[in-house]
Amino acid sequence: MDKILRINMGGKGGPQVTETPVGEYEGLGGRAMTSAVVLREVPADCHPLGADNKLVIAPGMLSGTLGAQTGRISVGCKSPLTGGIKEANSGGQAAQVLARLGYAAIILEGKPAGDSCYKVIINKDGVTVTEDITLAGLGNYAVVEKVKAEFGDKVATISIGPAGEMKLGAASVAFSDPEMRPTRHAGRGGVGAVMGSKGVKLIVLDDEGMSRRQAKDPEAFKDANKRFVAGLNSHPVTSQGLPLFGTNVLVNVVNEAGGFPTNNFKTGRFENASKISGETMAEQTTARGGVVTRGCHKGCVIRCSGDYIGPDGKWLTKQVEYETVWAHGANCGIDDLDIIAQLDRMDDDLGLDTIEMGNAIAVAMDAGVADFGDGPAALKLLEEVGKGTPLGRIIGSGAGTVGRVFSVENVPVVKNQALPAYDPRAVQGIGVTYATSPQGADHTAGYAVATNLMKVGGDVDPLKPEGNAELSRNLQIATASIDASGMCLFIAFAILDQPETFQALLDMINAFYGYSWTGDDWGAYGTAILKNEREFNTKAGFTKNDDRLPAFFKKMPLAPHNVTFQVTDEELDSVFDF
Amino acid sequence: MDKILRINMGGKGGPQVTETPVGEYEGLGGRAMTSAVVLREVPADCHPLGADNKLVIAPGMLSGTLGAQTGRISVGCKSPLTGGIKEANSGGQAAQVLARLGYAAIILEGKPAGDSCYKVIINKDGVTVTEDITLAGLGNYAVVEKVKAEFGDKVATISIGPAGEMKLGAASVAFSDPEMRPTRHAGRGGVGAVMGSKGVKLIVLDDEGMSRRQAKDPEAFKDANKRFVAGLNSHPVTSQGLPLFGTNVLVNVVNEAGGFPTNNFKTGRFENASKISGETMAEQTTARGGVVTRGCHKGCVIRCSGDYIGPDGKWLTKQVEYETVWAHGANCGIDDLDIIAQLDRMDDDLGLDTIEMGNAIAVAMDAGVADFGDGPAALKLLEEVGKGTPLGRIIGSGAGTVGRVFSVENVPVVKNQALPAYDPRAVQGIGVTYATSPQGADHTAGYAVATNLMKVGGDVDPLKPEGNAELSRNLQIATASIDASGMCLFIAFAILDQPETFQALLDMINAFYGYSWTGDDWGAYGTAILKNEREFNTKAGFTKNDDRLPAFFKKMPLAPHNVTFQVTDEELDSVFDF
Repeated sequence: MDKILRINMGGKGGPQVTETPVGEYEGLGGRAMTSAVVLREVPADCHPLGADNKLVIAPGMLSGTLGAQTGRISVGCKSPLTGGIKEANSGGQAAQVLARLGYAAIILEGKPAGDSCYKVIINKDGVTVTEDITLAGLGNYAVVEKVKAEFGDKVATISIGPAGEMKLGAASVAFSDPEMRPTRHAGRGGVGAVMGSKGVKLIVLDDEGMSRRQAKDPEAFKDANKRFVAGLNSHPVTSQGLPLFGTNVLVNVVNEAGGFPTNNFKTGRFENASKISGETMAEQTTARGGVVTRGCHKGCVIRCSGDYIGPDGKWLTKQVEYETVWAHGANCGIDDLDIIAQLDRMDDDLGLDTIEMGNAIAVAMDAGVADFGDGPAALKLLEEVGKGTPLGRIIGSGAGTVGRVFSVENVPVVKNQALPAYDPRAVQGIGVTYATSPQGADHTAGYAVATNLMKVGGDVDPLKPEGNAELSRNLQIATASIDASGMCLFIAFAILDQPETFQALLDMINAFYGYSWTGDDWGAYGTAILKNEREFNTKAGFTKNDDRLPAFFKKMPLAPHNVTFQVTDEELDSVFDF
Repeated sequence: MDKILRINMGGKGGPQVTETPVGEYEGLGGRAMTSAVVLREVPADCHPLGADNKLVIAPGMLSGTLGAQTGRISVGCKSPLTGGIKEANSGGQAAQVLARLGYAAIILEGKPAGDSCYKVIINKDGVTVTEDITLAGLGNYAVVEKVKAEFGDKVATISIGPAGEMKLGAASVAFSDPEMRPTRHAGRGGVGAVMGSKGVKLIVLDDEGMSRRQAKDPEAFKDANKRFVAGLNSHPVTSQGLPLFGTNVLVNVVNEAGGFPTNNFKTGRFENASKISGETMAEQTTARGGVVTRGCHKGCVIRCSGDYIGPDGKWLTKQVEYETVWAHGANCGIDDLDIIAQLDRMDDDLGLDTIEMGNAIAVAMDAGVADFGDGPAALKLLEEVGKGTPLGRIIGSGAGTVGRVFSVENVPVVKNQALPAYDPRAVQGIGVTYATSPQGADHTAGYAVATNLMKVGGDVDPLKPEGNAELSRNLQIATASIDASGMCLFIAFAILDQPETFQALLDMINAFYGYSWTGDDWGAYGTAILKNEREFNTKAGFTKNDDRLPAFFKKMPLAPHNVTFQVTDEELDSVFDF
């Protein structure tokens, strides 16, 4: 990981490939890399779909090593959805493969003159960029099938679906998983639209002939990793809840807590939650002959994913994640798991963020475009997105645009990015993260749900404002570091609760890089990332007014607790007062 | 004008009408009134379509008097299009009638629970508010015909079309003209959507039995008005250009100057400009038996309007204004006056801002939704708006939304409001106004075109940055005062060039109110309005980053002068440095 690959898609005579030493970006992985490059190289006032924006794809600090959980990858740019900086994080195979190929980042720059459809092949022999119009308009599943036919099933893919080609605000970048299916996505903020604007449909990564990255102190690294894995295997969330039921184990937890947004954030409990819970889905998967425990990338020991088997007994999509079950389920009043799974499959194939899509459809339902609870109507709306009809383009542009076009008053977005699956009135800590994260509304930016509801890393009352600003601040800092490490965010459960597991993580970094980081250094690394992101957003025109929830969360009480969002503006402004 | 009429549409048991003394708003007319009420009474963070927004309709300081040109009216609110403060100004009959009825403002407040369609009748006996579902969905022309049948043709109407009922971002508020046709509009910023959100379809104003407002010193007022009219009658623009050819006299002027934006701001000259010029339109109108010189309100002595007679010899719409001929014509590559006139008629009937619509269609053409120059396609797009189809709602939400949904890079908007008919690269003074006006891109907020191209009030080079920030600042201040006076903006030509005409205007105000204003007081009045508007926008989250033109105006040179917008950010920020 000592070089950066730059592909200028606006080069005279076609795409120009250059490789440069990592230089000023030395030591930066994942989100630390993407946010540094975007801040330094992208003009804050540029159009997100213009030649001046850059798409930065960066594996984590420890990706490509034998370390557990190190297969996460960051995709950064100026977001077409928020107009601010964006880092969207994904699992899949690419992080490990890209790191072994020696790249600390791929940066797509410039813009081709007209519409075009390029594929990029990267292997031990170098980089080729070629136009391939046979890929144009294909879904991610068809793209990966073509790659398999040409390159076999040991390579990793990065691709966009039709939504990215259409440059829609909710378009994702897809990463192939260990079974070589395009099920892992850098979903949020329209990163797929930026890849589409560069005219790049597909990147194939082949690390045949390359080796694992080696630590400065291989024995110490191996030992630290062993202790780290032991920590993950001893925490109940990472060793039992997530592997057995997937992330969707949260349906019952959050619904019970009264923070499960239903029918476009109208109530905090969904009466049919049990029909779409993780327990129900796991039982159904086993009954239909599927596997309930798989990793999203090789090297994962938590393995919170699995199969979703359709009613016909065939594999339909990956085990549907909690956020998706909520977005396409409860938030649209839909209680049919098979329909939710079909929507998930379509999102993955078209290349769309499931959270944004579920919210967009729910806001459209609020406008009367369809009825809450009408699953077939939701499927039809996603089909419209795929066809690129006007209605489909509205939906594919995200919840904020749906609200604007259909004149809906209560639209759950911050910085124009739709809220995830926890109502900020009943889980006030996550509300602080939604409001203040430089990313827009994003649960993964500082997952206060862990402390508010699961009492991981402490106990802060979810229904009251006290302590939630500080909680969110600390989690946002820790998360930025995790997103840079290449580690999966779920390690947070173990490192927050178990000091020895956090120490093992520091030992891994120190052994690999020859550092002598303490917990403070880890925190400073995260703080620096957030400062970069805030600086970009300030240049792009964001102010504290952008660090606010929509007014209805402060005015309309949420059942069953009949609570409004109580954290004051001053407390929100204190989050980044560092 | 000593009372304010408040109608709370969200009252328990139905709309509640209250009349209060003008009180703290004493002495404020037009834009001074609307902006003061919006700043003081509307929470800056409210949703523009929610119960907390207010729609303020205010005649000018001198409306309802015998003074010339005093029939302008202001409509203010938090704008659904820009998210900032809005004052949209219109001619028509309402200002004079409302002022004679004694109201300094009508304020629509609150919001009915469901969809509803109310009409408000105001006459010498008082105010009635009644539900009338027979009005629902009607175009403005049909609404006015119903009013004529019930109340005769001496009343004045304020109404919204289907676009306002749909609460679209480009929806206007229509005012009936002296011939009792709904041809005058408070067009910009979606004020019609706010009226629609209040459930008010129609306001009928009947001043039978009421008298003209009387000046404190009637003789001095009469004398000042005489001198003022003489000034208008002696300036070449207000006595010849505007009456003879209408505002559309500008086509040849601006096209010759290379600042006539063509095909979504791609070039500064339209090759078929002569086919749509004011001279051509006037000749055609005369040949078809129409009148080329009419006023938009009784008491107008400039009379820049007239008839547009269709190819069948029948009255089709009012003489189409320059901004509309440009927006639906050159900016869409359309050179057929009869099609442009049909688009104007449809905008008036549906209740839409012609500037926003022309830009929205042009951006859609840029996205490939239709071809530049395809008039029938433009007509069809407006029909879609009327039907409320998804495509229609996109278009009706304005150019910014079209750009977002169709992923267009070069979208000519400031604060999400579309640019009027002068390219800021070739007319840099108006570019400063577009960028910095609290209203979003608005030529009427500080019409630097007059000085840049017509050398009225001085001579500042349109192609260079020097002097244009100062020019725009001075014009924005003077304009705010004009917009408060109830006077038509076109008096600016005479008062800028002829000191004695400016003095006559001051004398009118002084004689009417018993003031002793100097030119400095006039300026201070305008400055106070702008400060109110800036304060609201700051509270709503606007920063200097919002006072910028889209980046492409700074990067892409405009033919034929091959010039970019050169005014620096620092100069833009200096405009409101007071």
